[in-house]
Parts: sequence; C-alpha cells; structure tokens
Amino acid sequence: MRPNPLLDSIRSRQVAVGVWLSTPSSVTAEVAGRVGFDYACVDMQHGLIDYSDAVPMLQALTLGGATPTVRVPWNEPGIIGKVLDAGAMAVIVPMVNTAEDAAAAMASGKYAPQGSRSSGPIRVAPVEGPEYADVANDHVQIIPMVETVEAVSNIDAILTTPGVEAIYVGPADLAVSMGLKRGTDDPSFFENLAHIVAKCEEHGVTPGIHCFPHTIEGQLDRGFRMVTAQSDLGAMTAALTGVLSHARGESIDADNSSGY
Amino acid sequence: MRPNPLLDSIRSRQVAVGVWLSTPSSVTAEVAGRVGFDYACVDMQHGLIDYSDAVPMLQALTLGGATPTVRVPWNEPGIIGKVLDAGAMAVIVPMVNTAEDAAAAMASGKYAPQGSRSSGPIRVAPVEGPEYADVANDHVQIIPMVETVEAVSNIDAILTTPGVEAIYVGPADLAVSMGLKRGTDDPSFFENLAHIVAKCEEHGVTPGIHCFPHTIEGQLDRGFRMVTAQSDLGAMTAALTGVLSHARGESIDADNSSGY
Amino acid sequence: MRPNPLLDSIRSRQVAVGVWLSTPSSVTAEVAGRVGFDYACVDMQHGLIDYSDAVPMLQALTLGGATPTVRVPWNEPGIIGKVLDAGAMAVIVPMVNTAEDAAAAMASGKYAPQGSRSSGPIRVAPVEGPEYADVANDHVQIIPMVETVEAVSNIDAILTTPGVEAIYVGPADLAVSMGLKRGTDDPSFFENLAHIVAKCEEHGVTPGIHCFPHTIEGQLDRGFRMVTAQSDLGAMTAALTGVLSHARGESIDADNSSGY
Amino acid sequence: MRPNPLLDSIRSRQVAVGVWLSTPSSVTAEVAGRVGFDYACVDMQHGLIDYSDAVPMLQALTLGGATPTVRVPWNEPGIIGKVLDAGAMAVIVPMVNTAEDAAAAMASGKYAPQGSRSSGPIRVAPVEGPEYADVANDHVQIIPMVETVEAVSNIDAILTTPGVEAIYVGPADLAVSMGLKRGTDDPSFFENLAHIVAKCEEHGVTPGIHCFPHTIEGQLDRGFRMVTAQSDLGAMTAALTGVLSHARGESIDADNSSGY
Amino acid sequence: MRPNPLLDSIRSRQVAVGVWLSTPSSVTAEVAGRVGFDYACVDMQHGLIDYSDAVPMLQALTLGGATPTVRVPWNEPGIIGKVLDAGAMAVIVPMVNTAEDAAAAMASGKYAPQGSRSSGPIRVAPVEGPEYADVANDHVQIIPMVETVEAVSNIDAILTTPGVEAIYVGPADLAVSMGLKRGTDDPSFFENLAHIVAKCEEHGVTPGIHCFPHTIEGQLDRGFRMVTAQSDLGAMTAALTGVLSHARGESIDADNSSGY
Amino acid sequence: MRPNPLLDSIRSRQVAVGVWLSTPSSVTAEVAGRVGFDYACVDMQHGLIDYSDAVPMLQALTLGGATPTVRVPWNEPGIIGKVLDAGAMAVIVPMVNTAEDAAAAMASGKYAPQGSRSSGPIRVAPVEGPEYADVANDHVQIIPMVETVEAVSNIDAILTTPGVEAIYVGPADLAVSMGLKRGTDDPSFFENLAHIVAKCEEHGVTPGIHCFPHTIEGQLDRGFRMVTAQSDLGAMTAALTGVLSHARGESIDADNSSGY
Repeated sequence: MRPNPLLDSIRSRQVAVGVWLSTPSSVTAEVAGRVGFDYACVDMQHGLIDYSDAVPMLQALTLGGATPTVRVPWNEPGIIGKVLDAGAMAVIVPMVNTAEDAAAAMASGKYAPQGSRSSGPIRVAPVEGPEYADVANDHVQIIPMVETVEAVSNIDAILTTPGVEAIYVGPADLAVSMGLKRGTDDPSFFENLAHIVAKCEEHGVTPGIHCFPHTIEGQLDRGFRMVTAQSDLGAMTAALTGVLSHARGESIDADNSSGY
Repeated sequence: MRPNPLLDSIRSRQVAVGVWLSTPSSVTAEVAGRVGFDYACVDMQHGLIDYSDAVPMLQALTLGGATPTVRVPWNEPGIIGKVLDAGAMAVIVPMVNTAEDAAAAMASGKYAPQGSRSSGPIRVAPVEGPEYADVANDHVQIIPMVETVEAVSNIDAILTTPGVEAIYVGPADLAVSMGLKRGTDDPSFFENLAHIVAKCEEHGVTPGIHCFPHTIEGQLDRGFRMVTAQSDLGAMTAALTGVLSHARGESIDADNSSGY
Repeated sequence: MRPNPLLDSIRSRQVAVGVWLSTPSSVTAEVAGRVGFDYACVDMQHGLIDYSDAVPMLQALTLGGATPTVRVPWNEPGIIGKVLDAGAMAVIVPMVNTAEDAAAAMASGKYAPQGSRSSGPIRVAPVEGPEYADVANDHVQIIPMVETVEAVSNIDAILTTPGVEAIYVGPADLAVSMGLKRGTDDPSFFENLAHIVAKCEEHGVTPGIHCFPHTIEGQLDRGFRMVTAQSDLGAMTAALTGVLSHARGESIDADNSSGY
Repeated sequence: MRPNPLLDSIRSRQVAVGVWLSTPSSVTAEVAGRVGFDYACVDMQHGLIDYSDAVPMLQALTLGGATPTVRVPWNEPGIIGKVLDAGAMAVIVPMVNTAEDAAAAMASGKYAPQGSRSSGPIRVAPVEGPEYADVANDHVQIIPMVETVEAVSNIDAILTTPGVEAIYVGPADLAVSMGLKRGTDDPSFFENLAHIVAKCEEHGVTPGIHCFPHTIEGQLDRGFRMVTAQSDLGAMTAALTGVLSHARGESIDADNSSGY
Repeated sequence: MRPNPLLDSIRSRQVAVGVWLSTPSSVTAEVAGRVGFDYACVDMQHGLIDYSDAVPMLQALTLGGATPTVRVPWNEPGIIGKVLDAGAMAVIVPMVNTAEDAAAAMASGKYAPQGSRSSGPIRVAPVEGPEYADVANDHVQIIPMVETVEAVSNIDAILTTPGVEAIYVGPADLAVSMGLKRGTDDPSFFENLAHIVAKCEEHGVTPGIHCFPHTIEGQLDRGFRMVTAQSDLGAMTAALTGVLSHARGESIDADNSSGY
Repeated sequence: MRPNPLLDSIRSRQVAVGVWLSTPSSVTAEVAGRVGFDYACVDMQHGLIDYSDAVPMLQALTLGGATPTVRVPWNEPGIIGKVLDAGAMAVIVPMVNTAEDAAAAMASGKYAPQGSRSSGPIRVAPVEGPEYADVANDHVQIIPMVETVEAVSNIDAILTTPGVEAIYVGPADLAVSMGLKRGTDDPSFFENLAHIVAKCEEHGVTPGIHCFPHTIEGQLDRGFRMVTAQSDLGAMTAALTGVLSHARGESIDADNSSGY
C-alpha cells in the first residue's frame, strides 16, 4: 500500500491538514496535491465535480503525497463504491444524523462480512498494491459528517458505530441546523463543537472539521485533529484579490476566503 | 438577486413560457437561453445530460435572461442539492406521487428549518448575490411533477405541501399511467388535466405542463400558466426537416416535434 | 427494432457471449463493439464510467452488432431510466438480494402498468424504431445480479419475479459474501453456482455469469448461457504483457486477465 | 465502402443538400445526421468545434446516411490528415486562393503518389471497409473554398488542379473580399457567383455554396449543385424564436437564420 | 459592444491589470473573471488549455467584466480566427520577431481589406452585439509578443505595423534569447525592457509585460501599462502553501509564484 | 529528473520497447503505462487524440515508468512546445524529409541558443524537477520520422542535424512512398530499412521503427533499437478476438493487429 498520511494521522492521533478541491480539473488537483497536505478531498457534494471529473482528479492525486479523499454527494452505496474503486482511500459522507445512517455508510464502504461493498477495485488495487483486497476494510476510512443538531443528539451512537475512526464537522450546516447564521460566533455553537470534540476523545475517534484560513487556529486549539485549511477556489480567489489590489496600489481586506 | 422571470410569473400569476434542453452542450444552452424564454430547463431525467454537462450549461444560461431550471433524474437529495449549488433557481422533480414525495422534494431544496438542504452555494451565491443565503428558501422553486394517477389522487395533499408554488404535469407519463397512449386525445385525459388546473387554482398553485408547439395553445386555454414550448432537439429537427424538404422541392409535414 | 442478439439468445436458450467495457471512451466502445460479441456491457458500477461517458459509448455501440447493455451503479430508478432512454436494451442491476429488490428493478425498467418507468425515450426510440414504445416492456431486459448468500437464499422469489428472464452472477461478490476469497475454488462455491443454474432451469430463466478467459469454459460446462468473456482493459493488458515479454525475449505467464 | 451520397451527387451531377454542424456535440450530430441530408459538415473553422469534439461527432454521423464531412480550420496537412483518419469522407478547405493552395490541399488529402497524406486510417478503414486504402485517393473529396477575389482571379488554375472535383463558395467572405457587406445584393456579387458556376461547368467541377434557408432556392437556380441548407444552431434558433412568438401570441419574422 | 476595459486602457493610456488562466476549466475562469481584472487571458500556448477547453472558458469570462483575451499557441491564422469567433476581443500572439510576423498576425485577426480573417463570428457577434462586424477591425486587439533579441532588433518595424496598438513582452523568453537565465537581474536585461518601453512611447503603442506578484511594481515603474499580475495556478499555489505553513505553525517564504 | 528509460536506452545503445496509445483516455494510458514498457507514445497524428485528451494522458503516464512520449500531428512549433510543456520527454515528429525539416523540428523542441522553444514548462518542470530548465535541451528527445523516399535520399543530412539522437521509421508510409503496398515484403523495402539502420550506425543515431507483434522480431534482428511493439487498440482487439473465438469454440487467426 502507498503512504497514507491521513490514516497515519488518525491512527497516531496527530493532526492532519487537508486541502479541498471544488474545481472539476485534474490540473488543479495535481497542483494542489503536490503542495504537501496530508489529504486532498475531491468535493462531489458542494464542489462542481461529478464522478467523470473525479476519475482523472484521483489519477492526478496519485502523483502527490496526500491521501486521496472524496466527499460524496449523499450517503448512497452506489457512489461510495464507485469512488473507492477509482482510488479514494477515505470517503467523507454528508448528513450522517443517526446510528442507522452511520451503519449504512460503513456498510457501503466495507466488504463482507463488515459491510456489503461490491468487489471490483478496478483502479485502486493496481495503484495501492496486490494486498489491497486484504487490507481495504482496515485501511479505508469512511468518515461520517456530523453537521446537524440531530447528529449531535446521536453523537454517542454515531461514534461507536463499528468502523468509525474519524468524523468530520460541517460548521455551516451545524450552525444553520441550530437556527444560527453561517459564520456565527454564538457561544452555543462553540459549545457544540467542544462537546463533539470531547465525545470524540471519549470514544477514541478523530474529530475533524471544515476550516477557513482564519478559523483553523481556533479549531486546532479546540482539539480538532483533521482540519481542512482551504479550498482550491478559495485560495485562488484570495491570492488574486490580493495581487490585484497590490497592482492597483490599494490596501485590501486580507481574508476573502468565503464565497466560491 | 438576478432577474427571475419564472419566479415573477408564478408570483404574479402570469404565463411563463420555457425552453427544454436535452443536449449536453453549453453552446446550445447559451443560444437557446438568449432567445427570450422565461425559463430554460436542463433536463437531467430524459435529456442526454449529466451533472458534469449541466455545470457549463448553467454557466451559459447565466448569460441569458431565462430562469436557470433543472429537471433532476429522480427525487433524491444529493442531486437536488448539487444543481441548486451550481446555479439552478428552479428544480423540477419527477414522479412526485404522494404528500411524502412532495415533502421530501421540498426538504431537499430548502435550508433548515424548512428543510435539510446542506449549505454550500458554491456557484449560485456569487452569481445571485450576497443575499442568496437569506432569500434562497423563499426564491428557489421546487416544482413537483404530477404525472401519474396516483399523484392525481393525492393532488390536494401535494398542492398543500408547504413550499409548493407550482407543479408540472408530464402528459406522456400521465397518459401511460392512465392506460392510454402517449399523445392520446381521450376525453378522460383532458378531464384529468382540467381537474389538475382546477385544483391548482383552488390552492393558489401555478399549474405547469410540458408542451409541444402544437399543444401549447390548448394548454394555455386549459389554464396552464407554466408551459414549455419546445426542446432544443425538437426545434432543430423540425427546422432542418422543413428546410431539407424546401431544398428538395417537397411539401412537408410541418410538425415533427416528437421524437428526439 | 434493430437486431438484438442478447434477447434472441435468451429467448432461444442459446449461449450469448459478451464483452465488458470499463474504459470511459467511445473509441474503445466502438472497437470492442465491432469484434462480434452478442452483447457489450458498459459497466457503470466498477468501470470508470459515468453517464456522461456512457452516452457517446452507447452511440458507438449502435455502430456494431452487440446488444447495448449497461450495468448501473446501483438499483435506483433514476439511473436505470436514464440509460434506457440513452439506448441500452439490457440493464444489469447489481446486488438484487430479495424479491423486493427484483421487483424494484423491474419497476424501474418497465412502463406502466408493469412498472413505473417514466416516458421519454429520447435516443432509444429514434435508434430502435417507431415501435419502441409499444415493445419496450417486452424487449428490454432488466437483469438482476445474484451475488450474495442472501440472494441465493431468495433465489426462487427472485427468479419468479415478473419480468425476470435472465440473471447475472457476480462470482467475486458471491465468494466474498460466502466468506471465501475472490477466485476461490472451494467446492461450496461451485455448488452454489450449480444450484443457481439448476434453479434458473427450473424457472425458465437464463443463467448468466461474469467470466475471465480462463473461467469461461468451466462456466459454459456448468450451464451458464450468458457469459462475459473479457473486459476492454483486461484484454489490452493481457495482450500488451504478452507482446512486451515477446519483445524482450522472455517467457510469459499467459493469463493476467485479472487486475484492472 | 459505405454509401456516400455526396460523392454520388458529385459524380452524377445531381444536387447534394447538406447540413452544417457548429455545435460540439455528438447528440446534435446524430440527430441532424438522421434527418436525411446528403452530407453533414462538422465545421471546425467557424463552428465551436475542435478535433476532440469532432471524433464522437464523426462516430455519431456514421449512424446516419449523410456523407461525413469536415471543414478544417485552415489549409494545413496535420488537421486534414487527422479528420480523414477519424472518418471524414470529404474535407472542405478554407481560403484556397491560388493553384499552390489547391495543390497543397490535395497533397494533404491524398496518399502517394498523388499526394503526401500519411498512412494510418485508424477509424475510417474499419468503418468504410477493407478496400479503403485502395480507393481512398479516388473517393475522398478535398473541396477547396473559393471565397476571395484572389481565388476568383485564379479560378481556372484552382479548378484544374488535379483532384479537384468540387469547390465550395463562402459568400460572406467573398462579399467582404469584394469590399461589400455580408448579405449583399450588389449585382457584381451575383455576377461573380455566376462566373464561378460557369467556370465550374467548363471544367466539369461541381459548384457548391454555403446557403441559408432563404438563399438556397436562388443558389440552386444559379446552378450550384452542392448546397448547405442550414446549420444546427440556425435551425434551432429559428424554430425556437417561432414557437416562442406563437406561445406569446405574437406575429414573427419567420427567418432569423443568420447569427449563431 | 460590451464594456472592454483592456481596449479602454490602451486607448486612454491607462494601466490595465490582467489575470492569466492556465487551467482548462470554465469554473476557474468564471471565478478569476469575477475578481475585477481588466483582462483575463486564456493561455493556449503554455497553459494546459486547448480550443475545446477555451470555448466554455470564454463563455464563463463573459459573465465577468474582464476583456476576454487568448494567447494562441503560435502565429497561425486558423487558431487566431477560431478564438476570435468564439469570443476573444484580444489575442496575444507569441514569437513575433519580424515585421512580417507582425503583419501576418494582423492579417489573421482583421477582416478585409485590413487583413484576411474569414467571416463567421458565430459566438462573438451574438455576445458583443449586432455592430460587431462593423467595428471588429477597430476593436479587436492583436497583440504581438516581443520576446527575443531578434524582435528587439526589429522593434520599430513591429511597432509601426498597421494595427499594432499594444505589444506584450515575455521576459523569460527574452532572457533566454539573450543568453541569460529566466528571472535574471542582469542590467542588460532591464536595459532591453527600458528600450522596448521607450520605443513603444515613441510609436504610441502600449507596452505590456508578463509579471509575477513580486515583479509587477517594478514593471509599472518601468512604464509598462498592460501587466499580468498572476495566474490561476500561481495564485492557488501561493495561497495554499501559505495556509498550509500557517496550519503547521511554520514560517513561510511568502512568494512562490513561480512554477506551475 | 525522473527515470527516463527511453533516454537511457538511446544513450547506452540498448533496445527500448514501447507501447502506442491511440485512445483518448487517461484510463487506458495509466493501464498501458504500468505494463513495463520503456516508452509510451501518445499518438496525436493517427491516434484519435487531441491536446486536451493528451494532458490527462500525460498525467496518467507519470504514474508508470515509461518515458512519456508524444507523436505530434505535424512538424509545427506550436504543438511541439505544448506537448513538451505538458510533460512529454520525447516527441516523434512525422514527415521529416529534409535537413530543413529536421532543423525545424529541433528548433521547436530546444530552448535558445540551440533552438527557439518558448519558455513555460508549466507541468513538466514541477514533475521532472527544478533542474528541468537546465537539462531540458540535453534530455528532451526530438525524434524525426524517416518515412519517405525523399527522407531516405536525405538521410545523411537528417542524421547529422544537431540534436538528432534517434529517428523513427514509419514502414507503412515508407512503403507507400516507394509505390508499394502497406505490409509489403518486397526486397527493395527491406533494403531501404537496412540502409537506414546502417546510416544510423554510421552517425551514432538510434534507429527506431513502428512494429506489430509479428514484425518486432525481424526489426530487432535488422538492428532497430527503438521498437514499438503494439498499440492499445491493437492489443485489445487481438485479445478480444481470441477470447471470443475461444468462447465460441472456434479456432482463430492469431494476429489481427492491423486495423484500428
């Protein structure tokens, strides 16, 4: 098996820093994948990416060192199986709100007897090596997203679902689900984050969260150990905005990481 | 927010005329989108179009004035969320046969607390403007298709599902579901259409229907106020057939809008 | 309707030999489709193929004589309808484990009253001919995969589901589901295959199975009558490996049909 | 060899009517190719089409009866060879202004000893049949465009260049080259057209010309025998404009075939 | 005609700041195009972009305010015409070393009588407006690259070629051509730049140059008035490198704008 | 710099065995690239491949060990520069018939002062390493095709053009150019091959040739040291034809390497 920094971080309780890919391009994937992140996540949910875009992106990610990761559009066995066969070693599954949701996600990503993933690792086996079929159930990370109040209320059941080694918080959805605005700084929101981290520690699960450049430090302080630092489009926009202002001789607002 | 002729028509009880896109091409989308229709619908169900085709088509539709609309392949939250994030301001959802189906469609398209759409309006927010997150639940139209006898039998429940402001009739499926042929002129079929329009009026919902050039007048007379006039491929085929016959000096059958 | 060798084989109880397409390319599809197989299956489950790739592949397959066939990623009505509209005359549906699964697959592929397929045969009707709408329910083959111990335990119910004329065994998944290795030669595995064939004969259903070049003879002897002989990538790899060794003056291991 | 209506028309001095393809899509190509035209021309010069788009379009055109034709972007051997290998049986070459230009175009499209086309008919030979290599030099039509005053002044030399059996007039470029407007009705323009036709007749060459629906009759009367009737986008736009006006209850200007 | 900031800058002798697009994606093009630059250049020479990628990129650029610009791979009439028809309002032409090269570039981009561009503005005319054909020769900017010692030696002839209103310096190629390294700070290099600027001023031509964020200030000081500030990939890489180091608690080298 | 088996073979006078890629797919490229060949050539001349297809293919080839090689459509500086920037370490240039042709090909592929390649190694430099700019002129192989009688008559001049370290014979074109059939076994043809090999030995240039599985042994015996063994499509067709016959119980004609 190839090096897998995300898996190593999860197993060794180290921090994993990731990059988010929203652009349907093998070019941006190769470039971002070479920067040095621990994982690179092809976002098929909110990114502008479908499976036919994801295949050459996963090929391009194999050229770099980051763990090839995919966020699927929804908790469905068809697409989870497809991205694993195409090369993903970790799959982030949105909207896992109950123990049943978590068990379904795990079943989609693990071969029998742990699950019901269908056998056909067409690209991932040649890439990862002949031992893939034997170790896939142990190595592949199926990572539920905890991003609603319902999920928080079921947090123990989700975290103790067999196979769960990491979860990933979607802060925007969690805020909206709590009746707050995206980007809120309401104390109840941060209490929920702290609660999730504490529960993860209790159950030996790695807490992950989606960040922006200006939120990453706080989330690391809060105890998250799988942090996505920035997206391809967010990075490009921030840097282009900065250099344009520089060229025009303006002062700029340094952080425009939101938006696209 | 950008101009939204379909929304304006629905809210003002005016007629909206639309064009149907079955070709997976940003070129045909741009051209059709400039003709002057109120909405342009990317058909991901029966059109030869998938999400990776739909993204540049939605970009191209932004260049014209028609409301960017998508018919999704099925009533599933993953794809409904994806097309909304990519720029659709209206989503037509096939095979909504029960109140539960209608509620599920609405949930997929509305943020909490009205629904469970996940937050990540990656393209639509920059395009529509900074107020998008605040007004999306009000502006985005999730339009159930009423196209089976089961749906007609549940018409009150569907029309009164919170969030339903328009429905869209699929006449071919409705006919088949009634045991009739596509293109039927059986009186029971037209009675069903009249019944649907009457129920829409009763509940203040805009009745929409899929048309061909030769059926649009009748459907307008029947009271439908959201009418798709023609598809890209139907238009091209009709015009090419006509000009070929003209070139060969033949008389032609003017309407061959069926088929592709 | 165009010639349909797979349908003819099923109806006449002759052997159908097929080719498997894992490459998202209309070029490989056209070339493989011209070789002379009875069916050519676009594998959207484990192949690296999505719907937007499948459309030009189905166009290319129309150029050859093999029945255009698609394996869908999962037992879902949206994608089953889409591939049928785009030209598939047979659909292989994975992981059909119960009578309910089988009935759902049939419903997705048949128009009312036999099922609930939505009407819109945008490409398949022009290709197959004006009688398509009338004969589709009779001609289109929806072929459940029998590939788990659960499916074997429900074999009578699956085989007697109205509309089932052929089933397709996935030997790798069946082995894994039995707690065995892929490629097993455990006697209990072959007993299960024999049991499936016997049940198919009992119910007048064609037994199909996924093969490799070195397994096809055994499966024909076992009574399977729909056999996939090889994949595009497997064929290419085997031949390239052979010719490279030949060029280097080495002796080679003739069969490396597994892998990609 | 497959049927070749354009070649038959040229050799038998009959009128060939063609359709123009400006959209980079195998879907529009298949649909337009089935309408019944004698040739279908993939326009790589002014159409929004590159070679990677043209390959699946040529595959799709093989499904219909029209002679697969390509207009290349410029008079260059690389692209002329590529489109011939991919399946074109006729190539329209823009801006052939001199005998040298005409000879270069012929050389690019004919094998030695008539020319210097490189051997590698990767798709066209399997499609057209095993005799392709033997008959290609005779069957393949390389059609120079006559579209400048310089070309008209060299018309005898162009028409007598070995291999030239048809030429194709670009009326917009010819008008501009004469210092007139596109769509001019200046008598000198029509005199030039008549002169070209007369010279073609003198040298036994088929005169072709790019038309619109409203110009085709006049050009046939003028003696042109290879007439392109309409484009995919022009047809679509005209029909959609008409049906929209009809739906809005407006009277319309029937011909808007110009533009896109 | 739509707003054209690059043209306005050239005509008014103001500074135009541009962004460079090396990624074959309509998504990055739309995002970069909205940032606020005066022009956005699709780089078909060194970027990983071909014409079929450029079409949806030009559609996406129409959504923003920057002048749609293309650098073609080489000084060839076919591709210059194609990108103009698809929507480019400015074309940067590499390796213009002589007056003949400059005249050829101008001819490729201007209609008769100024040049020999073929008429067929399939997308650009609908986008820019009905007056396009009349004003194209005046508005379209064909911008020669001055990037070799040979070009510098012919600078007067190039700058006085009719139609030249701006030139664009490629500093890497100019350095290599001088026998220096890319990124050189040899005084002779800067003397050449100053010489080019002075000659531009003498002939009333806008001097442009390719920059990086750290060179833009110097080039503006030197008198260049058309400056490309950064590329999509350079921006993304710089920002991702910075945020990764930040996340890992490292200090970083702020400018890594070179590379990809 | 990454390992470069083709360069090593040329410099060490060992045999290099290659694979030919005619399919526009990153999937077949990755699979073929892993088989173990010394070079893998993306054929943009006769293969069905354009630059936008070649980019993800070159990314995929980076995953294997074979030297990424491209045959360009024609001897033109634009496309030679583009494929080098995208990752090719060797470029095969068709129809090099004179010393001038050879010098032009070399100029297109080498930076000043050896040539006039433009600087912008956007993908190849990050892939190959920071020393790329310094060593490119030495490492990059520009390989002229010798495939006409004219080229044979100029063989000394071609082989002694500075930069030529290997040439590549196209046997089909050479035969046609000699007035013979493709696949000829005329003695004069083999005499020409022997003459080319002898001249290569005299000038210290590696002789290469395009082979089929049944011709490779003879060409190695004849002294060629760069031999392409088979293509992706040829391999797939041969293996599929064999396995189909095997499945049908037929004997087969083992070699059908011609065609596609």
